[in-house]
Amino acid sequence: MTQTIRAEVMTIGDEILFGQITDTNTQWIGTELTNIGIRTIRKTSVGDDAGAILDALREAHTRADLIIITGGLGPTKDDITKKTLCQYFGVGMVRNQQALDLVTSFFVKRGREMTDLNRGQADLPANAEYVQNDWGTAPGMWFAHDFGDGRTVVYVSLPGVPFEMKSLMTNRVLPRLKTHFNPPIIKHKMIRTVGIGESFLAERIEAWEDALPPHIRLAYLPSFGGVKLRLTATGIDHATLDRELAEQVAAVMPLIEANVFGFDNDEIETVVGKLLQEKGLMLGTAESCTGGYVAAQITKNPGASSHFMGSIVAYSNDIKTGVLGVDPKIIEQFGAVSEGTIRQMAEGCRRVLNVDVALATSGIAGPEGGSPEKPVGTIWIAVATNNGTAAKLLKLGQYRDQNIQLTSNYVLNLVREELLKISNKE
Amino acid sequence: MTQTIRAEVMTIGDEILFGQITDTNTQWIGTELTNIGIRTIRKTSVGDDAGAILDALREAHTRADLIIITGGLGPTKDDITKKTLCQYFGVGMVRNQQALDLVTSFFVKRGREMTDLNRGQADLPANAEYVQNDWGTAPGMWFAHDFGDGRTVVYVSLPGVPFEMKSLMTNRVLPRLKTHFNPPIIKHKMIRTVGIGESFLAERIEAWEDALPPHIRLAYLPSFGGVKLRLTATGIDHATLDRELAEQVAAVMPLIEANVFGFDNDEIETVVGKLLQEKGLMLGTAESCTGGYVAAQITKNPGASSHFMGSIVAYSNDIKTGVLGVDPKIIEQFGAVSEGTIRQMAEGCRRVLNVDVALATSGIAGPEGGSPEKPVGTIWIAVATNNGTAAKLLKLGQYRDQNIQLTSNYVLNLVREELLKISNKE
Repeated sequence: MTQTIRAEVMTIGDEILFGQITDTNTQWIGTELTNIGIRTIRKTSVGDDAGAILDALREAHTRADLIIITGGLGPTKDDITKKTLCQYFGVGMVRNQQALDLVTSFFVKRGREMTDLNRGQADLPANAEYVQNDWGTAPGMWFAHDFGDGRTVVYVSLPGVPFEMKSLMTNRVLPRLKTHFNPPIIKHKMIRTVGIGESFLAERIEAWEDALPPHIRLAYLPSFGGVKLRLTATGIDHATLDRELAEQVAAVMPLIEANVFGFDNDEIETVVGKLLQEKGLMLGTAESCTGGYVAAQITKNPGASSHFMGSIVAYSNDIKTGVLGVDPKIIEQFGAVSEGTIRQMAEGCRRVLNVDVALATSGIAGPEGGSPEKPVGTIWIAVATNNGTAAKLLKLGQYRDQNIQLTSNYVLNLVREELLKISNKE
Repeated sequence: MTQTIRAEVMTIGDEILFGQITDTNTQWIGTELTNIGIRTIRKTSVGDDAGAILDALREAHTRADLIIITGGLGPTKDDITKKTLCQYFGVGMVRNQQALDLVTSFFVKRGREMTDLNRGQADLPANAEYVQNDWGTAPGMWFAHDFGDGRTVVYVSLPGVPFEMKSLMTNRVLPRLKTHFNPPIIKHKMIRTVGIGESFLAERIEAWEDALPPHIRLAYLPSFGGVKLRLTATGIDHATLDRELAEQVAAVMPLIEANVFGFDNDEIETVVGKLLQEKGLMLGTAESCTGGYVAAQITKNPGASSHFMGSIVAYSNDIKTGVLGVDPKIIEQFGAVSEGTIRQMAEGCRRVLNVDVALATSGIAGPEGGSPEKPVGTIWIAVATNNGTAAKLLKLGQYRDQNIQLTSNYVLNLVREELLKISNKE
């Protein structure tokens, strides 16, 4: 049986430690490594500080077979990854002709003048293999270091700019890692639930969980969209693992079916999109408190145009009455956050956008605007179909971001439930 | 002079290593620690594995004065943080009455039945001080461990659910850290630029950068919104550091003024929001390829209703013609991604939503839908005011997410430029 290949993913930059940028790279790298059967055992972020980088590298090489480093490759003085790698490996810096040609052509193409700082981007540690970056001037690098005790550790250094890193990984690094390591197989299966808490779920499936074989692990991942159940199986044969995972899913499903909206990377918006497409229905949204967030969630997926028509973001009451045709008297009497208003928003949206299914949101997202009768987190949602209009009152928390995200998930789940009713009627 | 307080932030959970959830906690914690003058020197993520957690803790306590741990505190079997902390400190587990009362009241309030798993959440390592969690049943914990060599390290263990962690940190942990450590002062000043690359910026400010005193550091942070320049000053006196940072900003501004849209946490949408408010103007958006993303960016900020009226997400051409009033002949002749269409979208939006300023987006976000004349990344943006309509063609890349985010930033920057012209006229 092949051994587990253990990876450590390292990001370099004060900006990550100080919380000034969001690190999306390590999540993406973790997913990609998992997909090719390499197990990420540690993620580490250190600052732009040679001592800290050297410490982190020395710790990492004791436990990892592969170290992937992102960041610190820019042309400016605060970027010290290359210099520090030279120190770590005990080598000098050498100008790489292939890298220089690429940097030069990058500037020639754009008709820009090249500076010494830019030319310096073609300097690499002497033991580095150059890995071509098609999208920028920071180089990718591959090192295979033999520790003399039978262990060789592979180091990959990549730019921190996410799309450059992703392009380098996808086109050059991941294929080479597969060939180099020939890793064992790790397979995941995710079951996505909604409307049931983590501990209730756990009690319901306890007997099944206790009976899982040791090479299949279960994790509960709670999030705004609901609790995800993740099964992780390790082995050497694709077909066996697939069969074993399918059997476990089949065994647990009867216990939780009503709460399962999808599997794996299914998001509530893609599940709703698929249902709409299957039924040949078009969706529109009328959004007040979510302010376009629901539409943005739907349209971040390619192909949304097959089932999504558009949206009226009725942030002001003038748009609710003027564009969606909500009766001003209803708003005056019951307020913009009321069952009367939400029903008219959904129905007006259905009419104005000429769609089969319309969803609507209106509420107090916070932090301001609450009152004793309608505290922050009071949110109405509705879905109108040709079956009629379903409306629901949500009582959420005090955090604006969370209220917007939860409302989006709940209203999309209400769309799912209403769409399933349409199917049952047919 | 006070010593630097060094913190390590540790997250526990396979889901983070495998890339299955986005870790937003460590960024938030990094920002908050920086704000109270504690320097994050390392971020570490390990899996749900006792050995890995123990290794990480033992490495961390050699370099950090403070270790903040999130995750692994759920009621289910895969959550092992508490058990592992017992092992690390060499103590047993004790049921905490205060924690049990809170868990019990949590279930009583919701009229739900309590399970043994839930009761187990009140069990804490014997040397833990209980830190009350007002939002969930997972406990917060504070440990001060004396290593017997004069060094005491503080450990804080928090739930991984972001809003529970934030509430605990804000209300209970950060105030206590301030009292406990009395940290030196670290101040940041961020200058936010747009429309100039990192290396060009660096050449332009090189002399100024080289003359910075050693206690003020500069970093270049490139992102979709443009390059951020971050100045970090360390010292013991608020007023002195504020003055020194202000002097450095004043010295560099004349070199880069045209490219600066804001400072610190200014985002292009908040800068635009402030400008609109100052001028008493209302904004609306007409979005095709951004699909509501621009509206969602604007409305994620509280108080957006003072300057934002709403949006027409015209994802389908029917909405462009039917609701925004774009001439169908223009779309037929030049396409939905054309200067003619974008101008009519912006102008139609201004009319239909009855706003002073309207922005519009229409383009091929990808990955499908490109053609030789209009490849993926071809995107038109426009801004209509009572000065007329400004339109611009963007030639972006092949990644959908990135195209949507960049388009949002560019069209908001075009709004900013048009608003500044209005001010110059007055």
